[in-house]
Amino acid sequence: MKSYRKELRFNVPSRRGYINITAQVQDCIDESGIKEGLVLVNAMHITASVFINDDESGLHSDFETWLERLAPEKPHSAYAHNTYEDNADAHLKRQIMGREIVCAISEGRLDFGPWEQIFYGEYDGKRPKRVLVKIIGE
Amino acid sequence: MKSYRKELRFNVPSRRGYINITAQVQDCIDESGIKEGLVLVNAMHITASVFINDDESGLHSDFETWLERLAPEKPHSAYAHNTYEDNADAHLKRQIMGREIVCAISEGRLDFGPWEQIFYGEYDGKRPKRVLVKIIGE
Amino acid sequence: MKSYRKELRFNVPSRRGYINITAQVQDCIDESGIKEGLVLVNAMHITASVFINDDESGLHSDFETWLERLAPEKPHSAYAHNTYEDNADAHLKRQIMGREIVCAISEGRLDFGPWEQIFYGEYDGKRPKRVLVKIIGE
Repeated sequence: MKSYRKELRFNVPSRRGYINITAQVQDCIDESGIKEGLVLVNAMHITASVFINDDESGLHSDFETWLERLAPEKPHSAYAHNTYEDNADAHLKRQIMGREIVCAISEGRLDFGPWEQIFYGEYDGKRPKRVLVKIIGE
Repeated sequence: MKSYRKELRFNVPSRRGYINITAQVQDCIDESGIKEGLVLVNAMHITASVFINDDESGLHSDFETWLERLAPEKPHSAYAHNTYEDNADAHLKRQIMGREIVCAISEGRLDFGPWEQIFYGEYDGKRPKRVLVKIIGE
Repeated sequence: MKSYRKELRFNVPSRRGYINITAQVQDCIDESGIKEGLVLVNAMHITASVFINDDESGLHSDFETWLERLAPEKPHSAYAHNTYEDNADAHLKRQIMGREIVCAISEGRLDFGPWEQIFYGEYDGKRPKRVLVKIIGE
């Protein structure tokens, strides 16, 4: 069994945003030389997500509206967590969108359906954040 | 380390529905010959889910009501994604229900608690869809 | 490839609650002797969660308020599932919070960002429940 580890780094200039990281994850798989296995991709921060959905700007706008309806940022004072911080909503949004994905690697490629794309979802940006890519296989 | 791959195929006749796929996943494990490892089961489409919950029709009816409350299908025009499509709600519902599960395989069996059952959740049906089963272990 | 399996046991005295299980998961990794691999930690019950977020009591209080808003426990009669049971809301809450986490193990440690902590989330307590820890790697 082989294993591989890499950190991806992001600094989203707005509070919230989505970045397609599919190509970066495939680059990690290529670099690992692993042909059959699993790749774990997870946010290393608890106010961010890694998830798989459509690379379509209208949908990302719908995510913004929808998450603000389910877990609104403001008023900051509505949350018990927000004493020294103002990011309680980001902790909640990330529960809906998820921390991590696990994907199959088959014949050295992300084993994906036709529209699957991997995204980093930021809910408390304007600061450096990291994503972990861990691969095991052969 | 051994690995195994199989696609399951579905064509749900309604827009939304739930199919218990536990036995099909166990069949894959049996076919793989893997006794200790992990099985990943994921929707290959971004308007569908794989998740674990109760095989109880009342609960599935509650899922329908609840998901329609949190991410209603209509009006289609409420979503920026719905220009050429009408399935933005399906992309949102799938975020709540999840893309994938990872389960332990111990002694050649799905290592499950007493009521755990695996479901394919369809949110934009009436078309062919696929689920990927990937197993690694020994 | 090595594999390891352990069950953790809980009996939360209230209907809902959160327990930090990070140290118990690291103990499992230590006991397994696995230095590079993946650890799966999942609730074995379908009214409970395992998830990663902040160990901050204000946030846990926000989880309680928020989940009760998105999937209220009462009235019990609002749910089709609640004929012989009263826990439909717990099945829904667990979909938002998630069944499982998969974490990287690197150099024998949980490969975590600065604030990541693993929690058992109980939504139908006052009874014995189990969490499965499964590790594969080398």
